[in-house]
Amino acid sequence: MRLSRAFLPTLKETPAEAQIVSHRLMLRAGLIRQTSAGIYAWLPLGLRVLRKVSEIVRQEQDLAGAQEILMPTIQPAELWKESGRYDDYGKEMLRITDRHDREMLFGPTNEEMVTDIFKTYAKSYRDLPRNLYHIQWKFRDEIRPRFGVMRGREFLMKDAYSFDIDAEGARESYRRMFRAYLRTFARMGLKAIPMQADTGPIGGNLSHEFIILAETGESVVYLHKDLLDFDVLAQDPTGTGDPSPVVDFWTSRYAATDEKHDVAAWDAIPAESQVTERGIEVGHIFYFGTKYSKPMGLTVSGPDGTPVVPEMGSYGIGVSRLLAAIIEAGHDENGIIWPDAVAPFACAILNLKPGDAAADALCEQLYAALPGEAVYDDRGERAGAKFADADLIGYPWQAIIGPRGAAKGIVELKRRATGERLELPLEEAVAKIKASIA
Amino acid sequence: MRLSRAFLPTLKETPAEAQIVSHRLMLRAGLIRQTSAGIYAWLPLGLRVLRKVSEIVRQEQDLAGAQEILMPTIQPAELWKESGRYDDYGKEMLRITDRHDREMLFGPTNEEMVTDIFKTYAKSYRDLPRNLYHIQWKFRDEIRPRFGVMRGREFLMKDAYSFDIDAEGARESYRRMFRAYLRTFARMGLKAIPMQADTGPIGGNLSHEFIILAETGESVVYLHKDLLDFDVLAQDPTGTGDPSPVVDFWTSRYAATDEKHDVAAWDAIPAESQVTERGIEVGHIFYFGTKYSKPMGLTVSGPDGTPVVPEMGSYGIGVSRLLAAIIEAGHDENGIIWPDAVAPFACAILNLKPGDAAADALCEQLYAALPGEAVYDDRGERAGAKFADADLIGYPWQAIIGPRGAAKGIVELKRRATGERLELPLEEAVAKIKASIA
Repeated sequence: MRLSRAFLPTLKETPAEAQIVSHRLMLRAGLIRQTSAGIYAWLPLGLRVLRKVSEIVRQEQDLAGAQEILMPTIQPAELWKESGRYDDYGKEMLRITDRHDREMLFGPTNEEMVTDIFKTYAKSYRDLPRNLYHIQWKFRDEIRPRFGVMRGREFLMKDAYSFDIDAEGARESYRRMFRAYLRTFARMGLKAIPMQADTGPIGGNLSHEFIILAETGESVVYLHKDLLDFDVLAQDPTGTGDPSPVVDFWTSRYAATDEKHDVAAWDAIPAESQVTERGIEVGHIFYFGTKYSKPMGLTVSGPDGTPVVPEMGSYGIGVSRLLAAIIEAGHDENGIIWPDAVAPFACAILNLKPGDAAADALCEQLYAALPGEAVYDDRGERAGAKFADADLIGYPWQAIIGPRGAAKGIVELKRRATGERLELPLEEAVAKIKASIA
Repeated sequence: MRLSRAFLPTLKETPAEAQIVSHRLMLRAGLIRQTSAGIYAWLPLGLRVLRKVSEIVRQEQDLAGAQEILMPTIQPAELWKESGRYDDYGKEMLRITDRHDREMLFGPTNEEMVTDIFKTYAKSYRDLPRNLYHIQWKFRDEIRPRFGVMRGREFLMKDAYSFDIDAEGARESYRRMFRAYLRTFARMGLKAIPMQADTGPIGGNLSHEFIILAETGESVVYLHKDLLDFDVLAQDPTGTGDPSPVVDFWTSRYAATDEKHDVAAWDAIPAESQVTERGIEVGHIFYFGTKYSKPMGLTVSGPDGTPVVPEMGSYGIGVSRLLAAIIEAGHDENGIIWPDAVAPFACAILNLKPGDAAADALCEQLYAALPGEAVYDDRGERAGAKFADADLIGYPWQAIIGPRGAAKGIVELKRRATGERLELPLEEAVAKIKASIA
């Protein structure tokens, strides 16, 4: 993308309404723009990151055996009356009346709808186990939306729903999602810690939150230091096979949110292994048995022909929220520092002197060598403005090309995360950048 | 995907509520399931096609220089009051009141919102031209939703919005989208004919509908036979450069919907060149000047410093509707016939005797050779049921593998569209299938 023709607006001023750093940076870097309280439009750079994050989530769901569907945003109220949640949900549910005076709602979650869909087709124990997920916009009418996409009203969520013939099967589905979640966050360069959690309005008796550590996190968490050293991608490189070793490993050390903190257990941990940090919730998984399948009449015939009510779980990842969490965990005073896996573009090509024949030619060569992975800052701005924008947006690499280097065919590469600088011939610079994408 | 573990449900009975063939086939083949009147969930196969169709739309928008953003589904009513359309839109607009009694709505289109967003950032003539698009769910509260996703209430639309400094620039943007639309539909195997159209609630004075010919189409169209022979992908293979020759070519022959039919002009065409057919609208483009930019206060400073009100156009493709249109244009008595470019999977592997060692081994080899492009029917169903399901769903290829052929390493390939059958060794079968994907 050539910046002279692109719609990648950055803001010089810090918007007054933004209280946390990720919100400020997302507005300033031109990732999002507010359209109503707690509702945002995604501008080109923000959308690119949102799609990369979504794609990692999708790949790991698929690897874990879940199958993608897409449920609509608007749901009929009747389904929620069947489960008994219609009245429970209160004012957070955006209730809608259509032209025929039918009660509808903008879905905040999909337990009821997916159970109803699955019921149409699943007839026998042979139709189990199944896990269906979708990545869809949800709405929760927060009384005080704030912190940008961290606590918005319209937000993108991945929610998966597992159906099993019995409790042991359901726990296996739960363990597979548990591992998939660890892998998903690790691939985005995040350290997410699973913590036992309350089940809240979803219900059930087994639940974990996945929490990312960040100084600016919304709540305090307590964990054993060992958890910081576990690397799920090294522990279980394929992500297939029995998930139990990974789950057992991660649940064998103390980790708790403020709500669930057990002071006696905490005090039993050696002081040098106690870590108290702030955290941001990015995922939440639940096993809730027959809480929805039973009232909604989902049964299948078991191996002996008698009806069985499937055991269910649900598994959520806040996809749009993840962008804010990634920024909270990775930024400095100059702007965002994207992990390679989710950066909007791998590289910004900064032409320090548009119009200089050698600089123009080298920039064009580099740009052509990185299709879809580079923005080319060909604007007639001064060099300082280009550096500032590239730092603010946080491309992992900056390729700085001026007349002097260009005359010798040399590209100066700057790594955003470390500030490290390398002077390389074109081909080596391309190889360096491509290696970080793969 | 192995059918024994997949959620790809087909229905034997034709659902009584489905009046048109695409609706019947989408329900029977397990592409969609209704969740409310005019609202559908997309099951795995339907979602795969929806994403392939979306991706072709996206690629052609990008090629034409449009930039992708994503606006939210929920819009504030104030924007629509600024443009004057809030009252005009009537009951088709799904109006919503949030918990703070603010008037909101589920967007049926985005002229107001995109103008408001663009206004924040565009300051100078150097910020033009720009074309911003998104692919997002829309809602129109049809009084009588019917024909499945052909006329649903919640539907996926691609809508693009161009901003130009003057009328000539706006007409150039219009021509670029005109060509992009022809290319988009052609790549999906569709013959779409642009026809002059009324501008309706969008407004403006230049507009074309893109209409696909199908016996089961919703309205009658009249066109010159020459238009059926034009192939835009051959006429203008790169899709870049000046779009005028393509636009002039396609607008030089008679083509009109019933509404715009000009009997005198029609009668002037030799009878052997007159084609009267039924058609389905799949795209609609508009040039409407300053209809939104002016009341909403969008101005930029021109080259001489004086304020200029940008000229705008908008460009819609009914993405979810396209699936129904593709099926209306491509089916037979046994089911859907997907064009290669949008098929959910290129090939169904039909194992006629699961448990036979040679058949199982050959199926597994073929399945491994087509990652992500094959479903493997490994169910314990009789062969007839497998043939029927594969015909119904309409994979472009069926690889039929039984004990006899497998013993010789031979795959029987059936081409769904023609019924042609080939007996090939594994590697040649793989090459044949892969050639149709590329």
